[in-house]
Amino acid sequence: MSASVPPIRVNNNLLEMEYAVRGPIPKRAAELQKQGKKIIPCHIGNPQALGQPPLTYFRQVLSLVEDTSKIARERKLKDLFEENPYSDLKQKDFISDDVLAKSESILANLKSGMGAYTESKGPRFIREAIAEFINKRDDYKNRGGVIADPEKIFLTSGASGGVRFVIEALIAQKNDGIMIPIPQYPLYSATIKRAGGTQVNYYLDEEKGWTFDRDLLEEAFRKAVNNGVNIKGIVVINPGNPTGAILDEQHVDEVIAFAEDHNIAIIADEVYQDNIKADEFVSFARALGTKEVTLFSLHSISKGFYGECGHRGGYLEVRNPPKIQGSNMDFADLLVKTASVSLCPNTAGQVLVYLMVNQPQEGSEAYPQFIQEKNKILSDLADKATMIREAFTHMEGVECFGGTGALYLFPRLNKLPKGTTDFDYCMALLEDTGICTVNGSGFGQKEGTHHLRIAFLPPKELLAQVLPRWIEFHNKYVAETI
Amino acid sequence: MSASVPPIRVNNNLLEMEYAVRGPIPKRAAELQKQGKKIIPCHIGNPQALGQPPLTYFRQVLSLVEDTSKIARERKLKDLFEENPYSDLKQKDFISDDVLAKSESILANLKSGMGAYTESKGPRFIREAIAEFINKRDDYKNRGGVIADPEKIFLTSGASGGVRFVIEALIAQKNDGIMIPIPQYPLYSATIKRAGGTQVNYYLDEEKGWTFDRDLLEEAFRKAVNNGVNIKGIVVINPGNPTGAILDEQHVDEVIAFAEDHNIAIIADEVYQDNIKADEFVSFARALGTKEVTLFSLHSISKGFYGECGHRGGYLEVRNPPKIQGSNMDFADLLVKTASVSLCPNTAGQVLVYLMVNQPQEGSEAYPQFIQEKNKILSDLADKATMIREAFTHMEGVECFGGTGALYLFPRLNKLPKGTTDFDYCMALLEDTGICTVNGSGFGQKEGTHHLRIAFLPPKELLAQVLPRWIEFHNKYVAETI
Repeated sequence: MSASVPPIRVNNNLLEMEYAVRGPIPKRAAELQKQGKKIIPCHIGNPQALGQPPLTYFRQVLSLVEDTSKIARERKLKDLFEENPYSDLKQKDFISDDVLAKSESILANLKSGMGAYTESKGPRFIREAIAEFINKRDDYKNRGGVIADPEKIFLTSGASGGVRFVIEALIAQKNDGIMIPIPQYPLYSATIKRAGGTQVNYYLDEEKGWTFDRDLLEEAFRKAVNNGVNIKGIVVINPGNPTGAILDEQHVDEVIAFAEDHNIAIIADEVYQDNIKADEFVSFARALGTKEVTLFSLHSISKGFYGECGHRGGYLEVRNPPKIQGSNMDFADLLVKTASVSLCPNTAGQVLVYLMVNQPQEGSEAYPQFIQEKNKILSDLADKATMIREAFTHMEGVECFGGTGALYLFPRLNKLPKGTTDFDYCMALLEDTGICTVNGSGFGQKEGTHHLRIAFLPPKELLAQVLPRWIEFHNKYVAETI
Repeated sequence: MSASVPPIRVNNNLLEMEYAVRGPIPKRAAELQKQGKKIIPCHIGNPQALGQPPLTYFRQVLSLVEDTSKIARERKLKDLFEENPYSDLKQKDFISDDVLAKSESILANLKSGMGAYTESKGPRFIREAIAEFINKRDDYKNRGGVIADPEKIFLTSGASGGVRFVIEALIAQKNDGIMIPIPQYPLYSATIKRAGGTQVNYYLDEEKGWTFDRDLLEEAFRKAVNNGVNIKGIVVINPGNPTGAILDEQHVDEVIAFAEDHNIAIIADEVYQDNIKADEFVSFARALGTKEVTLFSLHSISKGFYGECGHRGGYLEVRNPPKIQGSNMDFADLLVKTASVSLCPNTAGQVLVYLMVNQPQEGSEAYPQFIQEKNKILSDLADKATMIREAFTHMEGVECFGGTGALYLFPRLNKLPKGTTDFDYCMALLEDTGICTVNGSGFGQKEGTHHLRIAFLPPKELLAQVLPRWIEFHNKYVAETI
């Protein structure tokens, strides 16, 4: 910062925008870490930062497509070692034919390899694979649904990239509003603020497991309209972040009927769909069927059992894009134009999205290891959530509603000392135990309530060490003896 | 598009935004390609799409950090084959110790591997390496310059990501203006439009090799101010896109003096710096020295001899960030906050940026192959530019000013038939020969002049085939016999 450069005015939306997940508590954690304190980063769903291993299959393919000469060499090596089992290298040190074939097929489809710009939406073969995945997931044939259109699918930089595209385009003026659940993932409030629109809250019902009903949506809608807000869309996060709640068919249908009646779009954040069992997940695309409601559905490689956050891959599927007033483009065309200015999403993330929608099938050589790794990650996550929930029962005045559908628990802190907030609590928890969480106010909550979000990602051994310390900290804190 | 979804109003800035590089001509090319026509994609600087190979060293490292088990295996394999030279595998089929060591060092620094979110700015060790690269490039010690600060460096998604951050934050209101050269790379006009600001043109002097002088800048500035525009910054592209012009010290100093006198920021697009010889390139950071002018400097892995467009890597260096009115943040803090909402740039792109600023040194095992590949790419580019320039001399009324500092030539078409535009010409050229270029109007040009931009990327053999057809097409077109 220099004395001679005068202060300037900047974009006020950016100035006012808040993003607690990378806010003051994680910042303080980074400082403490620099000072040598052991930090347990539970403020964000970043599984590999806490030791969750990547899927071997994913990385073997990615590794080969990045260095193409290795595919032929790998084949030669395999042959040599099959003829002459040699030294301490074993069959399992070599790459399966499935991986070699998949890598070759990706390179054949990409044509120019990993270093060329792709189409702005992503290459057609990846969009086709996503469409097939959606069709299969939603069993559209037996359910009389609508087939997914690869031309209405966009590869994005994580799901955040897709959210940004949609909200930026939907907001035409300041009083254009987007309904978001409270508590929410603060990407939504930040993106609405950044786009200069109006955030319209609907409050989830904590005691009912953080769900909602039609009346609750209508009330939020009516109130906003009375304040001059022109509502353009509703965000639903399913499974819920930070709540972990899993919506059943009835709730999904309610949102669709609500959106249909008010002619608004649905923004369905479905990035945790692979954290739960296939029969527990009701996709908005499936529930929509032939209803002509605008739907934006988001998915990501960062969550599920993939945890490939750093690779920034995701997709956005659009159904029933509206026409645009005063233009011969429809909304999907506008998204293509917007995407084209960033040229394309990164190719490594795109390849991982392709693998996410195109996993090894039962009976293939790669399957046994893949399924074993997948099951281990998911069962570990379940165990870790259970351990933390169990710890809550030893903490005075802590109640935890919602499910474990995502990667987080969002307990309510009923007995904070007078005058303290959940922000104070989380900061003190960090200083005392090294556990980095995010205060409930960062996600939004009913006035007078206090929460925190914790990602249930630390290894079990670490949790076993640190949870007793948290319990101890908590009971002292609420007894005002800290 | 569905009948029952009513048309909506959308963000008008996005609606009006134009981006010719992915506009109607490339769209038509994609259609023709689907119909089986051979297309030569010269509309964009996408070298690997035209057969430029990636640097082996870059990809070997990237491949190993994605599949970490391979590093130890590679060591074992090397030992085995050194003891027993075997079959048709040769020493050169194995990975150099340099690559193995570099991969290990990257993983040791990343700590959580490639799948975890990094800091929003990128990990400190990469930002430190960038700072060292800048310091060395600019010889700051001998020149009495200012050392680069790793905390003011941001890893970005290509250079586009950095441009977006800066312009979005600078534009506080509609009449906030950014000066851009004409012709320009349309990312700038699109981003200014997207951010809702005002584009202020300064016209480069074609006959003087697409350069400018202080008077020309002042005139554009004065005119805009008289129209109520509040100028916040000036974009300079050096080497120039689409012009290929290379700025000398005097021109760079002129921009700095201009920015200093008017208290505006410089946005220096320096993504082609590695396309030219080190002693030809005058960086803005070096020329700035200790002057307290706000500078945003952009670099990228997409250009130079790297051509890693698809991996979306780049960096933004900020010098002398201004304070912000009404806030205790400075401009760099605001960029950190904005970056944090997208969590982080993709890790593969980040690793390539690290390798770009940390290349194999003379004397190392990896150096001979690296330097040979680098020199081959750069000399091929020079040859290809020469071939195309030579072809222009056989085309009636074609003059080509500017240099070959970037990846493009931007010839003027002096003899288009009355009533036709450069857009018509480029479209006809595409239909006739398959050569996909972009019309000059997509970059901006003086009224009454016509140009096109061609990336000099097709392989020499292909150019040798296609240039005669272009010459034939051209001379017929201008004779109005098409």
